[in-house]
Amino acid sequence: MKFEISDRMSKMKGSAIREIFKLAGDPNVISLAGGNPAPELFPNKELSEIAKELLETNPVLSLQYGVTDGYVPLRDLVKERLKAKENIGTEDDELIIVSGGQQGIELVTKVLINEGDVVIVEEPSFIGATNAFRSYNAKLVGVPMEDDGLCVEELKKAIKENKNAKILYTIPTFQNPSGNTMSIEKRKEVYRICKENNILIIEDNPYGELSFTDEKLPTIKSMDTDGIVAYCGSFSKVIAPGLRVGFCIAPKELVAKMVVAKQVSDVHTSMLPQLLVYEFMKRYNLDEYIERNRKLYAHKCQTMLDAIEEYFPKSIKHTSPKGGLFVWCDMCGDYDTGEIAKEVVKDNVVFVPGSTFMVDMEKKCSCFRLNYSTMSDEKIVEGIKILGNALKKIVE
Amino acid sequence: MKFEISDRMSKMKGSAIREIFKLAGDPNVISLAGGNPAPELFPNKELSEIAKELLETNPVLSLQYGVTDGYVPLRDLVKERLKAKENIGTEDDELIIVSGGQQGIELVTKVLINEGDVVIVEEPSFIGATNAFRSYNAKLVGVPMEDDGLCVEELKKAIKENKNAKILYTIPTFQNPSGNTMSIEKRKEVYRICKENNILIIEDNPYGELSFTDEKLPTIKSMDTDGIVAYCGSFSKVIAPGLRVGFCIAPKELVAKMVVAKQVSDVHTSMLPQLLVYEFMKRYNLDEYIERNRKLYAHKCQTMLDAIEEYFPKSIKHTSPKGGLFVWCDMCGDYDTGEIAKEVVKDNVVFVPGSTFMVDMEKKCSCFRLNYSTMSDEKIVEGIKILGNALKKIVE
Repeated sequence: MKFEISDRMSKMKGSAIREIFKLAGDPNVISLAGGNPAPELFPNKELSEIAKELLETNPVLSLQYGVTDGYVPLRDLVKERLKAKENIGTEDDELIIVSGGQQGIELVTKVLINEGDVVIVEEPSFIGATNAFRSYNAKLVGVPMEDDGLCVEELKKAIKENKNAKILYTIPTFQNPSGNTMSIEKRKEVYRICKENNILIIEDNPYGELSFTDEKLPTIKSMDTDGIVAYCGSFSKVIAPGLRVGFCIAPKELVAKMVVAKQVSDVHTSMLPQLLVYEFMKRYNLDEYIERNRKLYAHKCQTMLDAIEEYFPKSIKHTSPKGGLFVWCDMCGDYDTGEIAKEVVKDNVVFVPGSTFMVDMEKKCSCFRLNYSTMSDEKIVEGIKILGNALKKIVE
Repeated sequence: MKFEISDRMSKMKGSAIREIFKLAGDPNVISLAGGNPAPELFPNKELSEIAKELLETNPVLSLQYGVTDGYVPLRDLVKERLKAKENIGTEDDELIIVSGGQQGIELVTKVLINEGDVVIVEEPSFIGATNAFRSYNAKLVGVPMEDDGLCVEELKKAIKENKNAKILYTIPTFQNPSGNTMSIEKRKEVYRICKENNILIIEDNPYGELSFTDEKLPTIKSMDTDGIVAYCGSFSKVIAPGLRVGFCIAPKELVAKMVVAKQVSDVHTSMLPQLLVYEFMKRYNLDEYIERNRKLYAHKCQTMLDAIEEYFPKSIKHTSPKGGLFVWCDMCGDYDTGEIAKEVVKDNVVFVPGSTFMVDMEKKCSCFRLNYSTMSDEKIVEGIKILGNALKKIVE
């Protein structure tokens, strides 16, 4: 049978990162590609005890069908934490537990976007999100990133030129892939502009807690007195990604429809992972664990930046993130990092070419993304050295 | 902000069953509504030991990101089992692990259906599936059920009248909600008709292993020499539903696109539940556990049928299933079981009105669905007695 693939999916290709990720499973490969958290930080002993106890003593709760919007005590706990730490959540908001932050983005899209509607994205942006929008046949419009967040003038222009813009997707803090953070002035301005133009903001914040400094900017959602922000969060980067537990807090009306969409997608998020997250947060101090994450990633980031200084050609620009998982590099010239990635993989080093994060993924791109959270210090240095040597041959 | 909900989702309402399910959590309520497996059969002790060991000894596998198409050893094991038990799987097929059988249906829909395309469904049919189709703005066309499966003449008519029919959705074995099973002659005929008309068959088989007899009919997928069947299965009814682990085996080309769609939906199915299913199947004899299920459900079904004979008005027709979880009743007259459900809930008994399973959910319906897998024998009898008394007041 010859399948006629739906319009929305016919042009979709798999994420290059996910493909590279398969390769990255090879222990001989130095992966600077994925966004995998450091596995040495997983609280596996704690989760092991909790899992044993839950399954032994509470089989119905752990193994029977649950409700679609999520395990109520977990929802309450996350709401409480968001309120206390971020001043997020009003009476008009509701919170839904999702199967990883990715599902929050996908559900908002399904609920709001008709084919052809415009979604404005930072450029570069997270491919999981851009592909979610593509998978509903949204038209993507990119707004260039600057060191202090998206270019506000370009955002205004994009809105003016696209009357059917319905969503702005942004990662204001430690953005993926650029590593940059939006200034407080821009946060306020972006909120104001979107409110004025009736555009929903998806604020994706999986990395916000992974700060290397004590500086803390308010989230856009904390300014949301008008009910225009859907805030997506995740336990992937602070507990463990394999659990697939995240959340989305958004205006009630929107969440009610997301619950309906989630019913037909996976009925509910797997109970045991939800319970593991809940019990872990109840029994342990999550902030202490996050503290360990912050220290380790700050160190790993510095290790990578030092190696870049030592081994990369001087003509290559790079960001110096204050948190999160990624460094963004620009070869500043007429280069195709997609081709370079294919070469460097022969030396057992993988990274993600910049085109992956662009609206037009076919166009060649001189940028690339590096991750420092997964590999050991030694491998980070070795990987950057190998990559640096390859880059020198090209640019010098 | 006033949200403009997408066309596909604007008319969608939550599943009535899921709403009733919330009520069913009340221990005072006798629930004949959901499709919850008997919790006393969950192998929770076994899973408890496995979970503890996995998290303790293999944190990276259990907690790090996994691949989108599923944990490879689990995929291989399920393929092996399907081949051995059902003669399912050709060189042109591929298998994807999904977050419950529901996700298999949703992904096939997303990949194949454009808004307005026709999906043919048995009528009555499973609301999780019909709502998944609705959520992509498919046009549903119902084909009436008969005791031996869907009416073939009506199927032919539906195809003739709907040139853009792309999918037939069927639950041939112990259908939800009717409890009926499609005869082997009809299976062959349905396959032939769909092949001739280039229509993909989604064969949903969550209950196939829950047979009360030793009679076993071949699945439609086992006849699939032409690559026209996507077969959805689940561990929800044979291990535990809260895990949210299922699978779909379908032509490679289709599965490749489903993997792309799953990437943007939940990245991958939670690792720990996948590993629990895998290790459980490796260490224990799943068939022995299924045997316990079959015996218990056969007994519970008979308990319900006996109670129906004793307490229901004689004018009410019901099916006598040979497997699965449901009995389907018809009041045979101008009755609205939606209204009756609202009355009976006051006596703490819940069931699902028939309109839930119809293409036109607004039309009043004289049928209703009863579940016997969740409640104790005593509660089944008590529930049927209360319901019978209420029905007698109406029909006599």
